[in-house]
Amino acid sequence: MHPRDPDFERRVRDSFARQTLMHTLGATLERVGAGEVELALPYRAELTQQHGFLHAGVVAAVVDSACGYAALSLMESGAAVLSVEFKVNLLAPARGARFRAIGHVVRAGRTLTVVSGELHAYATPSGGAHEVVAMMTATMMAVRGRPELAD
Amino acid sequence: MHPRDPDFERRVRDSFARQTLMHTLGATLERVGAGEVELALPYRAELTQQHGFLHAGVVAAVVDSACGYAALSLMESGAAVLSVEFKVNLLAPARGARFRAIGHVVRAGRTLTVVSGELHAYATPSGGAHEVVAMMTATMMAVRGRPELAD
Amino acid sequence: MHPRDPDFERRVRDSFARQTLMHTLGATLERVGAGEVELALPYRAELTQQHGFLHAGVVAAVVDSACGYAALSLMESGAAVLSVEFKVNLLAPARGARFRAIGHVVRAGRTLTVVSGELHAYATPSGGAHEVVAMMTATMMAVRGRPELAD
Amino acid sequence: MHPRDPDFERRVRDSFARQTLMHTLGATLERVGAGEVELALPYRAELTQQHGFLHAGVVAAVVDSACGYAALSLMESGAAVLSVEFKVNLLAPARGARFRAIGHVVRAGRTLTVVSGELHAYATPSGGAHEVVAMMTATMMAVRGRPELAD
Repeated sequence: MHPRDPDFERRVRDSFARQTLMHTLGATLERVGAGEVELALPYRAELTQQHGFLHAGVVAAVVDSACGYAALSLMESGAAVLSVEFKVNLLAPARGARFRAIGHVVRAGRTLTVVSGELHAYATPSGGAHEVVAMMTATMMAVRGRPELAD
Repeated sequence: MHPRDPDFERRVRDSFARQTLMHTLGATLERVGAGEVELALPYRAELTQQHGFLHAGVVAAVVDSACGYAALSLMESGAAVLSVEFKVNLLAPARGARFRAIGHVVRAGRTLTVVSGELHAYATPSGGAHEVVAMMTATMMAVRGRPELAD
Repeated sequence: MHPRDPDFERRVRDSFARQTLMHTLGATLERVGAGEVELALPYRAELTQQHGFLHAGVVAAVVDSACGYAALSLMESGAAVLSVEFKVNLLAPARGARFRAIGHVVRAGRTLTVVSGELHAYATPSGGAHEVVAMMTATMMAVRGRPELAD
Repeated sequence: MHPRDPDFERRVRDSFARQTLMHTLGATLERVGAGEVELALPYRAELTQQHGFLHAGVVAAVVDSACGYAALSLMESGAAVLSVEFKVNLLAPARGARFRAIGHVVRAGRTLTVVSGELHAYATPSGGAHEVVAMMTATMMAVRGRPELAD
């Protein structure tokens, strides 16, 4: 996909650095392509639901960030991205030693961008057996001309 | 709505206490009714997206927990609850001094329960202007006969 | 809610009359309020899935139209409405002698409007026992300045 | 994917033949694989919304049927399939001379099956330019032991 801003990777990285929640969760930005973004999240006992699986809200958080930045990567300089809506289907309990969240743009319009996302779970910190445990479809919105919102 | 387990409030409170993510976020369980549960979440700078609003993943986390426990409150003793899917519509930026997440059961079946949820934002810690900033519809599943999953 | 166009009911009725699918299904426009629209649909054997219930696509069709026109009722003259996305939760099999689809606006923004919808099933043509069999949350978009799209 | 019933194609075709709505819309069953089903729908002026595009309810109907039958193709003999929920993102106006709805199973559990679907639009009856105009994620449920529900 064609980015409108050649400097999109820096903009995405700067914006991600301002998402304090990602630091709180321990998520890192692994890859920024035009229309495709990938985050990593190691398992932490502080992030679980009652059975010890990753809480569905954490699943949503990292996949939503991957989807939002996949959308932002294709927007022109000066546009900010906001999530309009997303749906998550939880395919299997989110258990694993680490997780990878991927977002890729399906359709980029001027105002709205539709993005697909997934969460992959890995049995060990360095690889191992691997499973897709959640999928998301999200609508992201480009907001322009509001100086209080940037990227 | 009619709870199958008269001791439902204790079961919900015990299960909530095991959701480590709720402690990490600072969310508390405010009210447990039969088919309706309410959480509170004070604003924290550690929980935001790039513009300083509550991250959509945090929104999803607290509303999903409220919805899941609203479903569990109607299940018989011994059943565990898992989120099958949810959709969040973000109606307005989640800004405020504190937030209230509410889940209430729309339809409770033997296996699946459909729940509606909302996030309310309050301008000040003790009340003040008030706005619904997100809504969720979720499907929750009762899991039985799996000893590793309880409540 | 406050309509931007005092003539909103006529615009909604004219637009509905051009939705050929509504005629094909036998749906009629029963009530047009500012931000709330209601359709009626009698049961027909031509509209079912394999067990004789109303097909989920018909459920989606009438609730989506109710939601779309609820959104249009609040838009200014000259704006057209398009569905961005919707989710349907099917609460119970859609069986009945007639159905009522209701859409009501939850949040009306300049570009996007979020709408909630429901399908009610009635046991007899003239009333009788009554059940909500489906719920929808939908995002509708106002499209402006495209002469080929009106209302 | 591995079908539990070697005779799955016949079961899907028999069930599809009982979906009266598919006949009303003019949809046909083109391909039945294990976990993947495809329908065709020619454009008809009776199926549109107010701008002459295929109505979103028709989009939902054919993609939901494709998804439901993709799920049924993997269920054992005697199980019936019901839609639990689906979300549709409308990527572009559904205009074209004919349409192709595809459903493919993402995860097949004992009770719930998650399915992805798409609607493709073709500019001419025999092929031509081609675009994905809608995507769906759906949850389907296997119902057993209810003699009034079959396939």
